[in-house]
Amino acid sequence: MSTTPNRNFWNIEASHIAKNTYNPIRSIVENIVTEPNPNKLMIALSIGDPTTFGNLKPAREVIEAVKESIESGLFNGYAPSTGYQKAREAVAEYSSNEFVKVDPKDVILCSGCSCALDLCITALARPGQNILIPRPGFSIYRTLAEGLGIKVKSYNLLPEYGWEVNLDDLEAQIDENTAAIIINNPSNPCGSVFSRGHLADLLEIAARYYVPIIADEIYEHMVFPGRSFHPLASISVDVPILSCSGLTKRFLVPGWRMGWIIIHDRQNILDKEIRKGLQCLSQRIIGSNTIVQGALPAILQNTPQKFYDDVIETLYEHSRLAYSHISKIPGLKPIMPDGAMYMMVYINLACFTEFKSDLEFVQCMLMEESVFCLPGQCFDYPSYIRLVITVPKDMLVEACLRIQDFCERHHCKTSQTINELGRIEIEY
Amino acid sequence: MSTTPNRNFWNIEASHIAKNTYNPIRSIVENIVTEPNPNKLMIALSIGDPTTFGNLKPAREVIEAVKESIESGLFNGYAPSTGYQKAREAVAEYSSNEFVKVDPKDVILCSGCSCALDLCITALARPGQNILIPRPGFSIYRTLAEGLGIKVKSYNLLPEYGWEVNLDDLEAQIDENTAAIIINNPSNPCGSVFSRGHLADLLEIAARYYVPIIADEIYEHMVFPGRSFHPLASISVDVPILSCSGLTKRFLVPGWRMGWIIIHDRQNILDKEIRKGLQCLSQRIIGSNTIVQGALPAILQNTPQKFYDDVIETLYEHSRLAYSHISKIPGLKPIMPDGAMYMMVYINLACFTEFKSDLEFVQCMLMEESVFCLPGQCFDYPSYIRLVITVPKDMLVEACLRIQDFCERHHCKTSQTINELGRIEIEY
Repeated sequence: MSTTPNRNFWNIEASHIAKNTYNPIRSIVENIVTEPNPNKLMIALSIGDPTTFGNLKPAREVIEAVKESIESGLFNGYAPSTGYQKAREAVAEYSSNEFVKVDPKDVILCSGCSCALDLCITALARPGQNILIPRPGFSIYRTLAEGLGIKVKSYNLLPEYGWEVNLDDLEAQIDENTAAIIINNPSNPCGSVFSRGHLADLLEIAARYYVPIIADEIYEHMVFPGRSFHPLASISVDVPILSCSGLTKRFLVPGWRMGWIIIHDRQNILDKEIRKGLQCLSQRIIGSNTIVQGALPAILQNTPQKFYDDVIETLYEHSRLAYSHISKIPGLKPIMPDGAMYMMVYINLACFTEFKSDLEFVQCMLMEESVFCLPGQCFDYPSYIRLVITVPKDMLVEACLRIQDFCERHHCKTSQTINELGRIEIEY
Repeated sequence: MSTTPNRNFWNIEASHIAKNTYNPIRSIVENIVTEPNPNKLMIALSIGDPTTFGNLKPAREVIEAVKESIESGLFNGYAPSTGYQKAREAVAEYSSNEFVKVDPKDVILCSGCSCALDLCITALARPGQNILIPRPGFSIYRTLAEGLGIKVKSYNLLPEYGWEVNLDDLEAQIDENTAAIIINNPSNPCGSVFSRGHLADLLEIAARYYVPIIADEIYEHMVFPGRSFHPLASISVDVPILSCSGLTKRFLVPGWRMGWIIIHDRQNILDKEIRKGLQCLSQRIIGSNTIVQGALPAILQNTPQKFYDDVIETLYEHSRLAYSHISKIPGLKPIMPDGAMYMMVYINLACFTEFKSDLEFVQCMLMEESVFCLPGQCFDYPSYIRLVITVPKDMLVEACLRIQDFCERHHCKTSQTINELGRIEIEY
């Protein structure tokens, strides 16, 4: 060193990105020191992983496709960082419909949908700019953005209107530094599914202010009978949309880390910089696992409709069961989902005066009933809890019964009555 | 929007990270518009992917391990973002030796070694700081760092001393903003392997200036008979080291994206911030493919020694063959590697006066002989070319013959003689 350095001891600080990449769910959950009730088997309704309990399994065709891929010996080498051409073709075909035809060149395979979202946010926004995210909403958007020094501004969803976006609020959040709007449909944690009309309203606002959209559609097609999923891009004629999806949820294989971005850009607005930016960013980690890429055409083409239908039927049945049960629990108000794999439940904390927050509610329920749900504050939405409805039916029933017991015991008005009259009968 | 926005047209710029994430190899190669000679089959000695030509295949045990993993149905869900405990235990055991015992808690699984390097650089350095990288060196360090606004400063390797580091130069590069030194051993593109003594010298400098080291050891154990690979961490007593490795090269499966970081921190210097920072960063994309993670214990334990030996024997044979052949080509000077899968060849451009650079040399050779090597400028090291020596033997021989023809034809002194006397005899 030419100049005398100020290097006389070990003083290794983490970068801003490392310090600011912060997962609110993890830190809330990790701060819960409460132990479950040792006399009751733990039931976790907290984990957004449909595979946890073994009742939901990927299709046989999907497993066979991966076995053939590995056995072929053709998919061990580096793929292009945006993915094999054939795999991208398969995603393009899978994602095309009567309204929108996807070109393989518009597909970027990523290491899971989180990576897809990471690339989109990283490419579109810079430190000091902001992105708009839904409230309640999944925490990954905040984690990814704030790590990079990008601000997040929340727009409100309206529980009383099926969790539609408060359009006035969305519009009010847009400012000169807004780099993108994230639309999550179907929604985690709400389980809501937007109508065509509502999506058109969202697009109108984005178009009016020239804001591109990142559409988190990882729960695409996971909607209950009578409901329809509309890809946002199938409605847009001008707003550029980066759609993020993958195998994770619908195919029940979150660990495989196979996600993708689809660039919808009918006006060639993203051609100037963003398309190349996404490609360059994909080179940082050189794409996703090639064994799964090799299997992707067969996975997307051969998975039988019955598999999808069976999963939806299970989720729908579980939702109705939980909704019907929890509806009758004093102090709780569930909101029936239209898709995905979650249900939000409102806690009327005025009925549970010993708990100051949804967090205290879930902690006490964990301690007494060994049932754990994520508190709404994990989704920036206090006074709610989120239930995962993928657990086996008998566990879900048992969980509902325990939640009922818990609420009756702690409800400031019913607790007296119940102690006198015995347990409320609840059908499901 | 409350204030009138300056949002009257589509103007979507890419972020700085997207704009600055730049792969020099890709842009050099993509700017080569030369077509190969249509009358000669293309031989690419440019691709650092050992699987390209099908002559090097992963061990049967490895394929079986992955098939068992997928068939078990146990590895479809989310793993912890740093990896399954059993997979981390397997890596810890695989990476332990008589000098260093790795604890599973010090292992972070990543989506390939690129992702491991990305996490290390991102955690340790911030915009405005610098990292030191070898010259010649693999371009990924620059790509990852400059994308984040981190500067790179190069320290020179010495071809005449087996590509050892110029220690004075390394020391001279360290300044108050140096956040890390990257040591790549065995080296891409040099194929060099550092001795224990040389590694100790490097550690002494790092210790004196309190600079942590990122050790890119993705070619670990890939050394030729008579040479030894020493993990840097096996020598250090105080310098904190983040070792990056993975299955990619040694197991011949680069597409699988299975890499890892091992935190070597005997003095607990990284405990304050970096360990947590790496864990937080791993949550951005939630780790690596679980099918491969599930197979990792069997892969690391069951791959037979004969597999490793056979690969090394092939690489060693190819290296000697290419070295012996190219040594006799006028105007070229190969440097015999000690490991990895590359050979650097010096071009005495004074002998090829029609070419102004290594780039012009490789372009013309591509056009006339359909042989393509990466020019040294891809590694920040002009006047060299890098040969990949994993291609099948007959292709390598053919490539050497064509390189010979090419050099003889263009060499300003020999071209005349050869035209008169015919071709120089070269044994191999």
